[in-house]
Amino acid sequence: MTSPVGETGQQAIQRAARRAFTRQPYAEVTIRGIAADAGVSPSLVVKHFGSKERLFNSVADFGGAADQLLAAPLADLGRHMVLSLVSTRRTELMDPLLRVVFSLGNTDELALLRERFREQVTARLAERLPGEERALRAELIAGQLIGLGATLSLHRSGASAAATVEHIAELYGPALQRLIAGGTGQPPS
Amino acid sequence: MTSPVGETGQQAIQRAARRAFTRQPYAEVTIRGIAADAGVSPSLVVKHFGSKERLFNSVADFGGAADQLLAAPLADLGRHMVLSLVSTRRTELMDPLLRVVFSLGNTDELALLRERFREQVTARLAERLPGEERALRAELIAGQLIGLGATLSLHRSGASAAATVEHIAELYGPALQRLIAGGTGQPPS
Repeated sequence: MTSPVGETGQQAIQRAARRAFTRQPYAEVTIRGIAADAGVSPSLVVKHFGSKERLFNSVADFGGAADQLLAAPLADLGRHMVLSLVSTRRTELMDPLLRVVFSLGNTDELALLRERFREQVTARLAERLPGEERALRAELIAGQLIGLGATLSLHRSGASAAATVEHIAELYGPALQRLIAGGTGQPPS
Repeated sequence: MTSPVGETGQQAIQRAARRAFTRQPYAEVTIRGIAADAGVSPSLVVKHFGSKERLFNSVADFGGAADQLLAAPLADLGRHMVLSLVSTRRTELMDPLLRVVFSLGNTDELALLRERFREQVTARLAERLPGEERALRAELIAGQLIGLGATLSLHRSGASAAATVEHIAELYGPALQRLIAGGTGQPPS
């Protein structure tokens, strides 16, 4: 992998760890392999993350992503979530949520990723929502966020790759805001 | 895998083939393995699909899914796409689009899945749309469809699993319809 300009060793390790744990069985993942993929020494991986288990826990942790996605008042949350997700993808070259889709196969091994996502993203989102059917609306909002990351990855040379973050938020944000406000089609208060 | 009641051999083979090709390297996939997973004989797989290559081509083909998703007038297309996607998931126990996310890793092997999706889903959707920025809006609509399947898979015991197809369409359809109509927030004509 070519490292993006200005990427820190720690970011490179996180990117490599996400790739490794979502694409290989846990038993086959090695600190050495992750270090090689990140272009750093195995000792730097150990220095930053301690062990393979701690590295896996960091891959399965959506807490920091949820903090950033939810850091806006309710009336502006839909737009903010889109801006935050697309900006993170473009500046850090990592999607904050998309790795959860690689856990959707039949393997029990990545069940922890799904559980953490439901606790740290969906449930926290539901707590923030006003009105009825908060769990259902939170699940649908989570889908819109995962889907946005998926389509941006799928169309890397497409029209969305050329669009500004603000323009994507303008087009895609209202859908999230509608579900945030109550899914009734009323404008957010 | 337990076969759903009433599932035909051909459906079981298709489900097994999707699992195999999206989770294993192409070289490791065998007709025998797919037959075992589907609970049928290898000769039935050969009878229906001929060869491993033809089986892979059927996994990479989104043409039939796009036909179904697009089979509605423009004014009702958002609602129809949600109804169609969720109904297909529930009756056939297969998502019409979601397997494309398993091609989003770094492997070149599944590049064909991504290409076919862009040609057969995104480009056809763009052709149907009125107004400006059709490619961008089609990419965002594709994201909403992929995300819906992803969140339903992620929350299999969640609120969305308990909701009726119609209710999901009522909550989630307007977001797609807004992008279909032009992304300007005007109601569809």
